[in-house]
Amino acid sequence: MNLIQTRGPAGSTAPIEARYAAVRARTEALAAPLSAEDQCIQSMPDASPAKWHRAHTTWFFETFLLIPNLAGYRRFDERFGFLFNSYYEAAGPRHARPQRGMLTRPPAEAVTAYRAHVDAAMAELLRDLPPEARPLVELGLQHEEQHQELLLTDILHALSQNPLLPAYDPDWQEPRAATGPARFLDLPEGVAEIGHGGSGFAFDNETPRHRTWITGCRIADRLVSNADWLAFMADGGYRSPMLWMSDGWAACAAEGWEAPMHWHRREDGWMQFTPGGLRPLERAAPVRHISWYEAEAFARWAGKRLPTEMEWEVAAALPGFRDAAGIGWQWTNSAYLPYPGFRPWEGAVGEYNGKFMINQMVLRGGSLATPPGHARPSYRNFFPPGARWQFSALRLAEDAA
Amino acid sequence: MNLIQTRGPAGSTAPIEARYAAVRARTEALAAPLSAEDQCIQSMPDASPAKWHRAHTTWFFETFLLIPNLAGYRRFDERFGFLFNSYYEAAGPRHARPQRGMLTRPPAEAVTAYRAHVDAAMAELLRDLPPEARPLVELGLQHEEQHQELLLTDILHALSQNPLLPAYDPDWQEPRAATGPARFLDLPEGVAEIGHGGSGFAFDNETPRHRTWITGCRIADRLVSNADWLAFMADGGYRSPMLWMSDGWAACAAEGWEAPMHWHRREDGWMQFTPGGLRPLERAAPVRHISWYEAEAFARWAGKRLPTEMEWEVAAALPGFRDAAGIGWQWTNSAYLPYPGFRPWEGAVGEYNGKFMINQMVLRGGSLATPPGHARPSYRNFFPPGARWQFSALRLAEDAA
Amino acid sequence: MNLIQTRGPAGSTAPIEARYAAVRARTEALAAPLSAEDQCIQSMPDASPAKWHRAHTTWFFETFLLIPNLAGYRRFDERFGFLFNSYYEAAGPRHARPQRGMLTRPPAEAVTAYRAHVDAAMAELLRDLPPEARPLVELGLQHEEQHQELLLTDILHALSQNPLLPAYDPDWQEPRAATGPARFLDLPEGVAEIGHGGSGFAFDNETPRHRTWITGCRIADRLVSNADWLAFMADGGYRSPMLWMSDGWAACAAEGWEAPMHWHRREDGWMQFTPGGLRPLERAAPVRHISWYEAEAFARWAGKRLPTEMEWEVAAALPGFRDAAGIGWQWTNSAYLPYPGFRPWEGAVGEYNGKFMINQMVLRGGSLATPPGHARPSYRNFFPPGARWQFSALRLAEDAA
Amino acid sequence: MNLIQTRGPAGSTAPIEARYAAVRARTEALAAPLSAEDQCIQSMPDASPAKWHRAHTTWFFETFLLIPNLAGYRRFDERFGFLFNSYYEAAGPRHARPQRGMLTRPPAEAVTAYRAHVDAAMAELLRDLPPEARPLVELGLQHEEQHQELLLTDILHALSQNPLLPAYDPDWQEPRAATGPARFLDLPEGVAEIGHGGSGFAFDNETPRHRTWITGCRIADRLVSNADWLAFMADGGYRSPMLWMSDGWAACAAEGWEAPMHWHRREDGWMQFTPGGLRPLERAAPVRHISWYEAEAFARWAGKRLPTEMEWEVAAALPGFRDAAGIGWQWTNSAYLPYPGFRPWEGAVGEYNGKFMINQMVLRGGSLATPPGHARPSYRNFFPPGARWQFSALRLAEDAA
Ligand SMILES: [Fe+3]
Ligand SMILES: [Fe+3]
Ligand SMILES: [Fe+3]
Ligand SMILES: [Fe+3]
Repeated sequence: MNLIQTRGPAGSTAPIEARYAAVRARTEALAAPLSAEDQCIQSMPDASPAKWHRAHTTWFFETFLLIPNLAGYRRFDERFGFLFNSYYEAAGPRHARPQRGMLTRPPAEAVTAYRAHVDAAMAELLRDLPPEARPLVELGLQHEEQHQELLLTDILHALSQNPLLPAYDPDWQEPRAATGPARFLDLPEGVAEIGHGGSGFAFDNETPRHRTWITGCRIADRLVSNADWLAFMADGGYRSPMLWMSDGWAACAAEGWEAPMHWHRREDGWMQFTPGGLRPLERAAPVRHISWYEAEAFARWAGKRLPTEMEWEVAAALPGFRDAAGIGWQWTNSAYLPYPGFRPWEGAVGEYNGKFMINQMVLRGGSLATPPGHARPSYRNFFPPGARWQFSALRLAEDAA
Repeated sequence: MNLIQTRGPAGSTAPIEARYAAVRARTEALAAPLSAEDQCIQSMPDASPAKWHRAHTTWFFETFLLIPNLAGYRRFDERFGFLFNSYYEAAGPRHARPQRGMLTRPPAEAVTAYRAHVDAAMAELLRDLPPEARPLVELGLQHEEQHQELLLTDILHALSQNPLLPAYDPDWQEPRAATGPARFLDLPEGVAEIGHGGSGFAFDNETPRHRTWITGCRIADRLVSNADWLAFMADGGYRSPMLWMSDGWAACAAEGWEAPMHWHRREDGWMQFTPGGLRPLERAAPVRHISWYEAEAFARWAGKRLPTEMEWEVAAALPGFRDAAGIGWQWTNSAYLPYPGFRPWEGAVGEYNGKFMINQMVLRGGSLATPPGHARPSYRNFFPPGARWQFSALRLAEDAA
Repeated sequence: MNLIQTRGPAGSTAPIEARYAAVRARTEALAAPLSAEDQCIQSMPDASPAKWHRAHTTWFFETFLLIPNLAGYRRFDERFGFLFNSYYEAAGPRHARPQRGMLTRPPAEAVTAYRAHVDAAMAELLRDLPPEARPLVELGLQHEEQHQELLLTDILHALSQNPLLPAYDPDWQEPRAATGPARFLDLPEGVAEIGHGGSGFAFDNETPRHRTWITGCRIADRLVSNADWLAFMADGGYRSPMLWMSDGWAACAAEGWEAPMHWHRREDGWMQFTPGGLRPLERAAPVRHISWYEAEAFARWAGKRLPTEMEWEVAAALPGFRDAAGIGWQWTNSAYLPYPGFRPWEGAVGEYNGKFMINQMVLRGGSLATPPGHARPSYRNFFPPGARWQFSALRLAEDAA
Repeated sequence: MNLIQTRGPAGSTAPIEARYAAVRARTEALAAPLSAEDQCIQSMPDASPAKWHRAHTTWFFETFLLIPNLAGYRRFDERFGFLFNSYYEAAGPRHARPQRGMLTRPPAEAVTAYRAHVDAAMAELLRDLPPEARPLVELGLQHEEQHQELLLTDILHALSQNPLLPAYDPDWQEPRAATGPARFLDLPEGVAEIGHGGSGFAFDNETPRHRTWITGCRIADRLVSNADWLAFMADGGYRSPMLWMSDGWAACAAEGWEAPMHWHRREDGWMQFTPGGLRPLERAAPVRHISWYEAEAFARWAGKRLPTEMEWEVAAALPGFRDAAGIGWQWTNSAYLPYPGFRPWEGAVGEYNGKFMINQMVLRGGSLATPPGHARPSYRNFFPPGARWQFSALRLAEDAA
């Protein structure tokens, strides 16, 4: 049995009410710069409309918390279960994922009302929360934080499809990252423990904490920069099949990659489409919006390699390890697979992570779009190796001499 | 040389100002029931967002009337030429058709402002319209009327993709069509003239008026009804390859057709998704939302055939020929090809019709969505044989005994 | 009722035996240069393996002649009905068309034995042929002649997929066509009759003979040459969207057309892959392997147009009309549709032509690959507008002054 | 630097000559039951024609051994480098993989001659083989053995596309596998070494031998049987999304899986298409032709899991571990990734394995189609998780209590 772990002593409901309010408000703040039109479209099957993110996270609380636990709760709209279930087979049939952009109704303001309805009911529930339901509240909040990040990456992609390249937020501030040449930190050989083991919240896929064997290696103290990437490009990186995985080269050719996603070549140099709109590319900033294929080819070109997720997690505790979080998710050379002894959570939320453990590579760390405090060193993000629309970045490693 | 023909004596500008205002207002009235979200989505590459229809028809006046003819005209937004050009190679590059649903910006209200800006400038131009520009004004209005129909068919398709099946207009009134068994009108053999020849407006594809040979035949005085179609279905019409064209049977199998588009089987019988929402299927009403493939298979099942467009046009003048317009476009067995001696219009608008004269079948008449007064017996509508989202209907014919 | 029409007086069986033998032998002669491997592959869904052509034409005699008419006939192999039925729904289920290249078994020599088995039985049947079966024998032979042409076009396409570009027949002789600038023949306005009306064989789609109205025009006395086509190319024909139908331009872009099919640019000029292998392009020879889209764009570039099939058929009787047959099938601007009063043949062979009367354009004449004596002026060949692997050519027309 | 490791003492050429002859002869023996037609077709992009396998393995010796090492060697045909290079970017451009079935020329007998030509030259080279070339000879033989297995799996797939379901070899003998309920062998927790470390041949992807941490578990002593699989099917295994990975369920639905590949439901029970033709399914025999998705779903249904490749390799040394090889490749829950410290071979053969280390899952053991002596416990086979046409099987594992 693998119940969701709680943060703090069970039974203390006070902090969770504040936390609930804060997380829910943050979602609305993220959606605030978007018109109803902006919130409605789906620019590719992998992305979802902002309105859908707002409704789906609400459906999560309604379905897994309110209906089972709040006596007398009345659903906001019976039909929303079909519309806003993402992928839970146990929760019944659902609207096809690639069709999420067809939902002009309910309108954005109905989703606002849905959120208010559920928030009111949740307030009632939280006032007298059964201790066994508390982990699910925490999961609902963690889930909503994950969708906050997706809301941002998905709207960036959606706006990028518009020839006008409108800004999500013209005042957008980029985070500051470590700069200068990377130093390589030594990671010694031996048995190490990874995975989540403490009392705070963690996703089931981070557990159980377990031993693993680390082969000695060295890992960079910072991320690869745009300047580094320009050197790769100038050296023919996107035209040299010998640098690439076979599938990566095929993707590069099929999709016509010549630079990271969201880069635009203009007469006076490279620009980058950011949440703040189209801006001159900052050479010193870490590269982002790269696929695993590109990251891996770059590493080969540089005479290095990607770290494994085990190496990354152990190294994250080393002094000098910078920008673990807050800039970009860092591709590793680990496939997203279950840890030894992995058990999905009990019940319907058991579908949360487990059924995606194939065809994906692990990213570690956290990005500028990750809600502050959401991630941790044991956190496992995952995407297919061709995905580029996330704030994905790259930290190099190399074998010990 | 084939200039656009004008309605009424050249130089008389008074009526055109009123007509301009009426047509433009009708577009806005059609869009009025739609939220900005509704107006933004594109449910398939063949359809366009309502907002796009509103902007594109405006772009037509700006590009072909204001810029060449109104001294000092300032474009509303330089970038709209790229966004709202549909397919005019001569007017420069344009946004890819299947991506029209990505345009959350400009927002709907900016399109409203664009329309007002162009309307004001057009009012100025119309006050002192050069006679040679007048035909283009008329074309712009005819063009906008065509898009009014598309706005309706496209939004019906878009709303049909929503599992909630929202109504475009809950008070929608269906037109009344002739009912009862069809009588067949005799069309005698001989030379006849078809095509547009008078002084009123017509599209270039309706010209020149020319002689054609009519083989004697008989043509139904009314349209095939839903009851007729239910009999076809009950007799296995959708499961009998021998009734179908080879390509039609392949389309039927590939798309899983079992009834016309927008029909929904419910426990207590067939329903139809209409602009008024999901309503019980009216048995006596003419069938609609059928492809040419289905219409042709039905005719074979009934021991009849489709009329040619020449037969249709000549027969439309016979006494007793009912529902030529106002209900549904009527598939013919004529491919959309140039008339003998056809010349496209001069200039950029020469791309209006001519470059689509392949892979399409002609429909005649007019539908409930066609603006009153827009069509005429010589009018040639055209769609690929698999198209079903228009208000397409069926009138039978048969060879003379 | 529309029975297949016979050639010569009914009941006279002597000539048909010789004709049967000659047609059947010609097929085997055409296949003779091909190895069993060559005969087995299918290079695209529209083409069929040579072995399949040999077997399918044999299946036609077995199915429509021997089984119904020859008492005691024993099928060569019960399973061949499934394998070698092309598209006759009435003759039962069949192997999927795009999978014909998977039939390594039966081997080529089994097909040879199949042919011998059916030929022996046919000899027996022809000795005492019921008069009512005779039209079907003639149809079987006409059918086999059609497949002889396809065998050649299909193997040319198959060999063209091999980087070695092997010759079908290194001694292949190209036909000699009229050369020099085209003269335009006058076709007067008025009622004309077209379609097959005599006692010789014709396909059902050529009937009934009927009146049509010809608008006066002028039609070229010879075909467009490779030199003409090079001028079109040099003038940017393949890079000028204004010359093309909208669908044609899309096809040109999607498939990367820059010249007719089977043209290869080499350092010292254009070469053409022919049944004789890769040979220098003959400038004076008629252009071939062009789609309708290309033909139509060329005509627009030349300030001309394509003739209709009615114009072509009437003009073919004019003095001076050269190369009607023997060089290349000539695209017309007529869609392949039923003639007024068209009735498919009775019985299963009613599927022969009728169910393809959509999405295709008519070609007239006959090509170098058409068996001598097979075609006639009323003959209607048909292919989709994007098809290029046939020996398709182009004759221009223009409106009367 | 990671040179290919040799078997036996360097310099001793006698055994390699015999081994060369034996391997090469075995390929020809495997192709012997196939006609030239059988050898020519490609039934899907992932499979290759038998003739191509025969030529490509020959090209390997010509390209990597003869041209660099045998003075005066004359290529059999200059053009074969283009035709029979599989994926070596360093060896120049090549024929597109999905087009391998288009190569009716060179004919099968020319490939036979090519093999003889290369064999003669190799005999000459082997008489005085430079010691540094010897590892490449061994690699060439190992490579050919791999293609021997593919030749069999690919031809089984090709023949399965033929409605006649012809047998590759009617006298085909199935291997005998362990039967009866599985016992679970204990694997203790601790550091273990895996990977190839001895002096015999191994592929670069098996190296370096390295330490890994094994979490204690239990692993079945035999493979899952057809009877087991029938129980899974009877319990709705193919209709229960909760048992499947999300991508697996999508594949199951898209491809309509209801049983392993090559199973046919007949009136009197299940049959299996084998190299010996269609035969009654043996309940006691191990299941095969299953994808990773199916294997993983089965394991979940059974309350077990797949072993990792590390567990498999360590367990293979346990007493009682049966059918490691000779029956079916066994899916593991390990992604195909480089071992810590992995270095591809030097030179062009560095592309052999390394560039496929993404999007694939590891299979361990060996199958009935694997040449005897070819595989070893450290051997890493790999295929995408949806692949079913290999002789892929399943051994279960479970966590220690
Ligand atoms: Fe979610
Ligand atoms: Fe338009
Ligand atoms: Fe045929
Ligand atoms: Fe190979």
